[in-house]
Amino acid sequence: MRLMKALVFRGPHKLALEDRPRPTLLEATDAIVRITTTSICGTDLHILKGDVPSVTDGRILGHEGVGMVEEVGASVAGFHRGDKVLISLITSCGRCSFCRKAMYSHCRAGGWLLGNSIDGTQAEYVRIPFADTGLYHLPTEADDEAVVMLSCILPTGLECGALNGQVKPGDSVAIVGAGPVGLATLLATQLYSPAQIIMIGHDDHRLEVARALGATQVMNSSDGKAVERVLALTQGAGVDVAIEAVGLPETFDLCQAIIAPGGHIANVGVHGKAVALHLEKLWASNITLTTRLVDASTTPMLLGMVQAGRLAVKKLISHRFALSEILQAYDTFAHAAQQHALKVIIKAQPKAVAP
Amino acid sequence: MRLMKALVFRGPHKLALEDRPRPTLLEATDAIVRITTTSICGTDLHILKGDVPSVTDGRILGHEGVGMVEEVGASVAGFHRGDKVLISLITSCGRCSFCRKAMYSHCRAGGWLLGNSIDGTQAEYVRIPFADTGLYHLPTEADDEAVVMLSCILPTGLECGALNGQVKPGDSVAIVGAGPVGLATLLATQLYSPAQIIMIGHDDHRLEVARALGATQVMNSSDGKAVERVLALTQGAGVDVAIEAVGLPETFDLCQAIIAPGGHIANVGVHGKAVALHLEKLWASNITLTTRLVDASTTPMLLGMVQAGRLAVKKLISHRFALSEILQAYDTFAHAAQQHALKVIIKAQPKAVAP
Amino acid sequence: MRLMKALVFRGPHKLALEDRPRPTLLEATDAIVRITTTSICGTDLHILKGDVPSVTDGRILGHEGVGMVEEVGASVAGFHRGDKVLISLITSCGRCSFCRKAMYSHCRAGGWLLGNSIDGTQAEYVRIPFADTGLYHLPTEADDEAVVMLSCILPTGLECGALNGQVKPGDSVAIVGAGPVGLATLLATQLYSPAQIIMIGHDDHRLEVARALGATQVMNSSDGKAVERVLALTQGAGVDVAIEAVGLPETFDLCQAIIAPGGHIANVGVHGKAVALHLEKLWASNITLTTRLVDASTTPMLLGMVQAGRLAVKKLISHRFALSEILQAYDTFAHAAQQHALKVIIKAQPKAVAP
Amino acid sequence: MRLMKALVFRGPHKLALEDRPRPTLLEATDAIVRITTTSICGTDLHILKGDVPSVTDGRILGHEGVGMVEEVGASVAGFHRGDKVLISLITSCGRCSFCRKAMYSHCRAGGWLLGNSIDGTQAEYVRIPFADTGLYHLPTEADDEAVVMLSCILPTGLECGALNGQVKPGDSVAIVGAGPVGLATLLATQLYSPAQIIMIGHDDHRLEVARALGATQVMNSSDGKAVERVLALTQGAGVDVAIEAVGLPETFDLCQAIIAPGGHIANVGVHGKAVALHLEKLWASNITLTTRLVDASTTPMLLGMVQAGRLAVKKLISHRFALSEILQAYDTFAHAAQQHALKVIIKAQPKAVAP
Repeated sequence: MRLMKALVFRGPHKLALEDRPRPTLLEATDAIVRITTTSICGTDLHILKGDVPSVTDGRILGHEGVGMVEEVGASVAGFHRGDKVLISLITSCGRCSFCRKAMYSHCRAGGWLLGNSIDGTQAEYVRIPFADTGLYHLPTEADDEAVVMLSCILPTGLECGALNGQVKPGDSVAIVGAGPVGLATLLATQLYSPAQIIMIGHDDHRLEVARALGATQVMNSSDGKAVERVLALTQGAGVDVAIEAVGLPETFDLCQAIIAPGGHIANVGVHGKAVALHLEKLWASNITLTTRLVDASTTPMLLGMVQAGRLAVKKLISHRFALSEILQAYDTFAHAAQQHALKVIIKAQPKAVAP
Repeated sequence: MRLMKALVFRGPHKLALEDRPRPTLLEATDAIVRITTTSICGTDLHILKGDVPSVTDGRILGHEGVGMVEEVGASVAGFHRGDKVLISLITSCGRCSFCRKAMYSHCRAGGWLLGNSIDGTQAEYVRIPFADTGLYHLPTEADDEAVVMLSCILPTGLECGALNGQVKPGDSVAIVGAGPVGLATLLATQLYSPAQIIMIGHDDHRLEVARALGATQVMNSSDGKAVERVLALTQGAGVDVAIEAVGLPETFDLCQAIIAPGGHIANVGVHGKAVALHLEKLWASNITLTTRLVDASTTPMLLGMVQAGRLAVKKLISHRFALSEILQAYDTFAHAAQQHALKVIIKAQPKAVAP
Repeated sequence: MRLMKALVFRGPHKLALEDRPRPTLLEATDAIVRITTTSICGTDLHILKGDVPSVTDGRILGHEGVGMVEEVGASVAGFHRGDKVLISLITSCGRCSFCRKAMYSHCRAGGWLLGNSIDGTQAEYVRIPFADTGLYHLPTEADDEAVVMLSCILPTGLECGALNGQVKPGDSVAIVGAGPVGLATLLATQLYSPAQIIMIGHDDHRLEVARALGATQVMNSSDGKAVERVLALTQGAGVDVAIEAVGLPETFDLCQAIIAPGGHIANVGVHGKAVALHLEKLWASNITLTTRLVDASTTPMLLGMVQAGRLAVKKLISHRFALSEILQAYDTFAHAAQQHALKVIIKAQPKAVAP
Repeated sequence: MRLMKALVFRGPHKLALEDRPRPTLLEATDAIVRITTTSICGTDLHILKGDVPSVTDGRILGHEGVGMVEEVGASVAGFHRGDKVLISLITSCGRCSFCRKAMYSHCRAGGWLLGNSIDGTQAEYVRIPFADTGLYHLPTEADDEAVVMLSCILPTGLECGALNGQVKPGDSVAIVGAGPVGLATLLATQLYSPAQIIMIGHDDHRLEVARALGATQVMNSSDGKAVERVLALTQGAGVDVAIEAVGLPETFDLCQAIIAPGGHIANVGVHGKAVALHLEKLWASNITLTTRLVDASTTPMLLGMVQAGRLAVKKLISHRFALSEILQAYDTFAHAAQQHALKVIIKAQPKAVAP
């Protein structure tokens, strides 16, 4: 049995870099991928806190990755050993009723499995079920660091934020939350040319990044005056689209307070408890409110945009580590404000060249 | 000054049938309409309870009506004295930014005004602002009682319920609330051919009416087992569309408990307080939740359907009264369960023929 | 080698009922289905005339069918020997870029293959590629004759006609062509509750069937006055939706002549040559014109509607034959006007009970 | 009677700058606007050739303009003397059935009237019917030259091209025709972030402008190889969206030859004769083809984008003239290739500052 290095969840607040057996093919539709680049998602921090009960002791974490196909099962048609690939966070069978509606996140045999109910990508190797629909071909020259942003964070910002919010040219948009997923939403939103994008957060550094990434206004909401300031910026009308990218009752409240009649509230954040929905005000406001677990159905399009040089996803990256340094990477990412951390890149292979 | 009979709100729990001056033209865009048929809306009962602060002592109530044009202002282009007309509950200027988006309910100079901030239709005459966009031509032979259902209740069920819920062929739909607006929603929903319509309410009589109007299943939720029974009827999947037609936290809760992933919750009910939105469960469910004040943008289409004999709206009517009996009509409508009341028709002219 | 009976294309105008080897599994994703019920499509007559060059001498025809799974390949997950199934005319891999957009008809490994580039369903057995996405489960008690209408003709009428035409409540719709596919379109269109459906054809018998199936007006266009009569029926406005279900320049012309500004022309017919598009008139008419090869993406929904008893598809059936009588069935179907033929049912098993 | 200078159509190939009576209010809904800036549209050249029979001898041409309100009729609510305004090419009553569907171009009392069936904007003053819906407020500091691009050409490119073509992020788009309307379409298309925009034309200068305005590839089709080169640029797939911005059978043909399955052909060009539609190929291609007379429903959004500095419309301007030089302006615009002319600006007031 050949071993590999892997980042393993050992119960709340405990992570370890361990030697684990390399994964092997279990189903004819599987592929084994050798990871070259992975990353850490905000959801991994939730797992670390013990907030995600489906993740149990011993699980290899991670659902983002770029790598090389090592081996494929007998019925994998589209991939071969040696192919360079992007790994999608979403596993989908391609044939259940949800898949036939492009709701891959609810696939009856799939969904978000990697680094959740099966071992993930923060390792040297990973097993990918339904490889034909869970992997995407990359040209050899593709930039790993750019492309790994498409495993999870860009599709999330686009699908749960921009698309669900129905952002359209000329809109005024507020994004509440300037963490990595909020910033990815900021990038995705600009594909639809809003006239105004107001970025609201708590961390001045991240707000400055937001301004550099295209926010037309940024706002530190620590003073409790975000509502009145958004209304002032919109001549009292409120915004056409409010995107919640935090996952707390108070940020969801803010979205409700600033939405214009006819507007869209798109929830991106992962929520741990119920929120108050002010139907006593909103019942007559012609509001649309959406939730979504990312389906990653937009990954091929995003890949095309990155390869055409039209999506500056690498601006989301702040730090780079080797897989051997992944505990330090987690520490950096968990202390984002002090470290000015955004997305951190993990090179599963020996770190070649520093940025 | 010529007088007329009118039903006047005299503060919470007080109504009076009074002699009031006939309305006169105030703006060049006004029309005066002689009412032949009107009705009472559930919202009128809310006003009576004192729940609608915009309605003040002295206001003539009513926002539904069919009548004859008596007089038009100088700039009214489409209507003339003697025209038979349907009155829309919504007043719209046709030129503000909301009107240009067909969000007439939020018209900057209009919206729901009749029987709210200006005198309404439960009278012998009414003044209609922006007559060109607030009235619809009727042929002389049109059936008043059918058509008056299009002033408010049918557009409400269609726009806030069926359209916002995006009902489509083959869907499973639950309508929570079997009052008049729930039943109107039931009729409207069938325009989109769902496979299953589950009607949920508290009143067995109304549920039987629902069955006669096309519900495929009816369910009295008094036993507290509605959730499990809906899930049983949908093989555990939940419904594609849940329509809230009551306006209470518990009925809104029910909608959240029975909605399938990818489903639509359409709020029709008027809510008096905030509700709990279970984002801790729904954040990942790809749900769309909508609110809307009816815009009455579908009135011309509904009128076409009624005139083509393709919409059995008269089945919503249970009682008929003369305007002189309107206090009794309110009493009947307020005690719907005992009276088996649905929509009540008020004939502003001496009652000719009993049903 | 075990033999079976099969209807074989032997070049233009030649068909034969032959003994052929039973199909066997070629790929791990295949299934072998024993046919119980099949039918003949208008496209089969085109093939017979030699109009479809992809169909070569020796091909077993037929792309409609209901049957029992006899055998499945190693990677078929959703079906097992003994399952009763509906066969879709469309083969789809479920993982190519077209499949991921639900454009199954353009699947890179599939599309319309059965009875075209591979052997079809007018036989005792058929091989179904990508069985997991090409078959649908049926309950044992399902009515074969109803369900076989969902292999091709109902999805065609719905997708290419009603959906592409964006039929909505209250619309006026004209369907040009009252053959089986036009009549299926008539059924499908009613799922969206138009106010008016004008059926236009050449055959009075079929027009009477159309009236029984829900057409509000029928019109024999043999007198050359269809345009003026449609305009008269629509107060000079023209129709909101014109559906071409024939495939000839003159019927396409008719659709252009009767379409209202803002209307939709949906092409269903298979065309053999270019048509004149009157852009000199239509450039300013806000028209949408669509074409489509049926994707059969609506089959699960249609199956639900048939099983819920909400779609009267058996009214499309006029004749029933045993597989041994299939040459006679072709003859009947090819002389539809004289025979008053609509869809003909072929029982692959000895005919049990006459209708 | 006070006189003004105006450009008058005097029959095919004849224009004159004449003294004409200043317009006066005819209806209570009219406004009189003093023109400060106007322009010449390709359609004006069609008129000059005698191709537009609705334009008769004596008509003042022009349907683009920015100016100051001089006088308003009694029922104009939203505008007053001294307001700076943008004039829309489309007149709309705001209350007919077409206006209620936002199909203003087909308004029963309006549509494209200015410089067509009523006198237009290439004059010192113009009468604007239904001023409340035909004018837009401008701040005093608004840049006339930028804003006048929104009277006609930008809404045309956006509505008939980008919106009708359903351009979405990642798409490949071909625009056939690099004249002013093609270039406006190029700007509008970028609001939806296609990955690839191929501009096809005959004039190398305009193609260079196209490249500067954001085309990712440009192509001179004079060599007759446009089809093969577009296919090469799209790996044989064809484009997702083909926009016809010329109005000739051969350019329409090109669009049909390069469209991918599932693609959209959006017609922008004004056509003088029928074209061949290749249904023998396209019937199975899942194509959507659209036509549209611009409704100018997007003007408020475009105005917001220009005022937010997010739409570089002034790059469409090549020349500037005084109203007294308008015959020279027409000459320049009519010889666009030699003159390198794009949009020409006409200053109705004495030309102040040269560009």
